[in-house]
Amino acid sequence: MLSNNVIKIITSLSSKKYRQKYNLFVVEGVKNIGEVIKSSIKIKELFITEDFWPDENSIKKTYIDEKELKKISFLSTPNVGLALCELPSNDENIKLNGLTIALDDIRDPGNLGTIIRLADWFGVENILCTKESVDLYNPKVVMSTMGSFTRVKVHYIELESFLSTYEGNIFGTFMEGESIYEQKLPQEGILVMGNEANGISKPIENLTTNKLSIPFFGKNGSTESLNVAVATSVILGEFKSQISNKS
Amino acid sequence: MLSNNVIKIITSLSSKKYRQKYNLFVVEGVKNIGEVIKSSIKIKELFITEDFWPDENSIKKTYIDEKELKKISFLSTPNVGLALCELPSNDENIKLNGLTIALDDIRDPGNLGTIIRLADWFGVENILCTKESVDLYNPKVVMSTMGSFTRVKVHYIELESFLSTYEGNIFGTFMEGESIYEQKLPQEGILVMGNEANGISKPIENLTTNKLSIPFFGKNGSTESLNVAVATSVILGEFKSQISNKS
Repeated sequence: MLSNNVIKIITSLSSKKYRQKYNLFVVEGVKNIGEVIKSSIKIKELFITEDFWPDENSIKKTYIDEKELKKISFLSTPNVGLALCELPSNDENIKLNGLTIALDDIRDPGNLGTIIRLADWFGVENILCTKESVDLYNPKVVMSTMGSFTRVKVHYIELESFLSTYEGNIFGTFMEGESIYEQKLPQEGILVMGNEANGISKPIENLTTNKLSIPFFGKNGSTESLNVAVATSVILGEFKSQISNKS
Repeated sequence: MLSNNVIKIITSLSSKKYRQKYNLFVVEGVKNIGEVIKSSIKIKELFITEDFWPDENSIKKTYIDEKELKKISFLSTPNVGLALCELPSNDENIKLNGLTIALDDIRDPGNLGTIIRLADWFGVENILCTKESVDLYNPKVVMSTMGSFTRVKVHYIELESFLSTYEGNIFGTFMEGESIYEQKLPQEGILVMGNEANGISKPIENLTTNKLSIPFFGKNGSTESLNVAVATSVILGEFKSQISNKS
């Protein structure tokens, strides 16, 4: 049976403060836990209702019932188990390669999760985040990456000062930028995506070398922009489109 | 003050059964309500804490306080008001033009909402949905379209029988299809996107004329596919990319 103290510690991990205090975070669901097992992330304890990983003998497994899982889970419909994982140490050594994504204050956990999953798919190795961006180890971010967070490196840095010394292309996405479809996109550089409500902040906008935009093809006067994760997917798609050979 | 009966009716509109019974649906938030006012959708009553539309004199406005708004709102943080709208009649006359999206059992409200918003952006006029797909007038769908549902026509039809008599290109997205980057994409046809868990159903797969896929560029063996809304955005982006002039 789970002690009240264990329940209290696990549920506290929705908050960054407690994740840092205990040096722990939570991964849920068969798919996500499977990805963590394959990765270098250390699982401190696996709480499961059913063992989907019978060959993994080095992991401490605690069997619990559905009711107990519900008590510690962050999901409305918990799924098989919850892995209590150790926070990986911050990778201070940032080595960029190819295209990198930089996020200027992304606040929505689902958006960060979707962008990490996209980065994994499109071979983007690094994501740079301002320190005010939503935390990678937020349970909702981890959940929505579907395991991709184990493969993409996410760095929380002083983005403005980092970009100010960066010598390559810095792409920013703006409503009034130049169409991504009407220019050659170099395959190396940093693609900055802005905050959900306010877009890219002025100091960072000033550091961009290329202002991009996704042209609007609609007929009626929509004033709305695309969601940031969706915009990221269109832009990454176009970067890849330009290195492919169309018949 | 809102009567208990009004509160009961409005909150019941989360369910399709009651939307059809009362012939009503709910639109929330300044942006969404503003779009509905501009559209042909009829607002039966506007419940507001503050009047953002002082010039709209033909709409019945009922002033309520924040507490009352919280009682009828489907949002965790209600925003200015809620419009009680009449369900538009089903448009039986489907006139396709250019590229059309067909959704084979999309179940997640956020995915449908995002796809409607994308369609609006990329000039897709019609979306065809299987009858089992999530309902357009689900409050979560309406919310996530950010007003785009007033401009894009969404038809709930017998998709399989419709496609079986359709004579143009029927594109389907599959893990093992042909790369979207390595073929000419015609600018007219129907693009079928599949259910979140099961993809495109076999009978509909058999009706597709072109099997598309978004190639995977990642280094490590991710087994995960892209989310359906994100995949739709990459594919729509590539359709548009192919008609643009790159310098």
